[in-house]
Amino acid sequence: MNQEYTAIKNQIDRALEQLIRQDPANPLAEAMAYGISTPGKRIRGVLTVYFCRRLSVPEEQAVPFAVALELIHAYSLVHDDMPEMDNDAYRRGLPTCHKKYGPALALLAGDAILNYSMEYLLSHRSLYRPEPFLRALEALYQAAGSGGMLRGQAMDKIGESHALSLDELFLLHRLKTGALLSAPIEIASALSGTRNENYVNYCRRIGLAFQIKDDLLDVEGSPAVLGKETGRDSEESKSTFVSVMGVNEAKKALAEELEAATAAVSDDPFLCWLAGYIGKREK
Amino acid sequence: MNQEYTAIKNQIDRALEQLIRQDPANPLAEAMAYGISTPGKRIRGVLTVYFCRRLSVPEEQAVPFAVALELIHAYSLVHDDMPEMDNDAYRRGLPTCHKKYGPALALLAGDAILNYSMEYLLSHRSLYRPEPFLRALEALYQAAGSGGMLRGQAMDKIGESHALSLDELFLLHRLKTGALLSAPIEIASALSGTRNENYVNYCRRIGLAFQIKDDLLDVEGSPAVLGKETGRDSEESKSTFVSVMGVNEAKKALAEELEAATAAVSDDPFLCWLAGYIGKREK
Repeated sequence: MNQEYTAIKNQIDRALEQLIRQDPANPLAEAMAYGISTPGKRIRGVLTVYFCRRLSVPEEQAVPFAVALELIHAYSLVHDDMPEMDNDAYRRGLPTCHKKYGPALALLAGDAILNYSMEYLLSHRSLYRPEPFLRALEALYQAAGSGGMLRGQAMDKIGESHALSLDELFLLHRLKTGALLSAPIEIASALSGTRNENYVNYCRRIGLAFQIKDDLLDVEGSPAVLGKETGRDSEESKSTFVSVMGVNEAKKALAEELEAATAAVSDDPFLCWLAGYIGKREK
Repeated sequence: MNQEYTAIKNQIDRALEQLIRQDPANPLAEAMAYGISTPGKRIRGVLTVYFCRRLSVPEEQAVPFAVALELIHAYSLVHDDMPEMDNDAYRRGLPTCHKKYGPALALLAGDAILNYSMEYLLSHRSLYRPEPFLRALEALYQAAGSGGMLRGQAMDKIGESHALSLDELFLLHRLKTGALLSAPIEIASALSGTRNENYVNYCRRIGLAFQIKDDLLDVEGSPAVLGKETGRDSEESKSTFVSVMGVNEAKKALAEELEAATAAVSDDPFLCWLAGYIGKREK
């Protein structure tokens, strides 16, 4: 793993660990902490801190948004794993939140993590000038909302009952996976008041690449390494890049997206490394 | 109905109706609009506008928070009705969101309404000075979160499997129902920079009264008027004020809370009327 990536990731993991104070009188706290602490790559948070560095946003302003973005990602996974959604029993080798705490508490814990992302950011408001802070909040919740990630999740669910065209599939994943992977550059732009179109372009490309790789891993990945079952997509006749394009075309599309991503940021070794990592990752 | 109440309620209903633009390409929009438009008393929104008037907050600053608070209430009902929670098929005489759109879309629609409350408030930020705006946002999301409403909902769910003491029941409802019924005065205080302890006290009292009345309606109410099944609490051996105290003691407690509420605001005919209405309501 890249050293800078690991250093930022550790910083985010430490912040996430310290969030939820366990409280025996609050049955929600444990389920929230469980949902938040599922091990992950923290790629959205790492990118937030990285772009903030590149755009000269002070580190202490970057980290709370990185943490909040990871909270939003975490709640979306808790809800996405639930019986009425993907009905997954394992994530990263651990029982999913609803398997451990039951679906009612998992539902509430997901809600509570989303709500907490807001409370958490607001509690850090003294670190920011108001206008950039409010702009960054707006960028974050627009990415997460019914015009972004949640719209993509709804399209994904509906795509289980009828075949999607390739265009619909691209839109779905630009939203479902892409919105939160583009949020880092939107947040950094809002906080810095500057905008770098190459970074914006890079995020769009790796967002799609990330999802194509996900679909390929569901066909070719190792359940032991992934920490979850594979083959679920085809079991559910879900429209994926692999089912619509076939494995070979999907691999070609993955390579193209990653090539375009690195072309946009060819002078930035960290971002080029990350694009390569997304293509090669095994989990 | 009180004329001032109706006028404020209509204002909030109009604002809520205009929120979600239907979009055939966005399957989530219809389910969100359905969850938001469930007819209701809009008591939380009305109180927000009313307290803002009393504390000299400009009307155009009050209404967006009233709307956002009703959005949060609406999402909580969508999720609360779901199979893993109360498993209710009807609300106010209409099929619940998950009955109409299926549980997956209802789950996402609830998430999206909560997220949208944030997007909506942020889009109105130019109406406010930043500091009071941020304080009011914090008050709202603290009331809705894992230290407020959501904690109460989790306690409620857990209370289905073991009997609660009266103290636990009071705490549960101070959170589950009380937090969002106290949010109006917390928001108005934050926006105005002033605080009226009589109003704070009033909200606490009507919050409990509201829930005791709810429990009584589940035993004594008319399903046709309520628009939902009654007797669900005792079917599920749920701990309620009625199951713990008995009908007569619950009625006495209701009267006591309402008396204390009106005593706190005896010079305010509107709030006294509202307390009386909460005690007499049939739905």
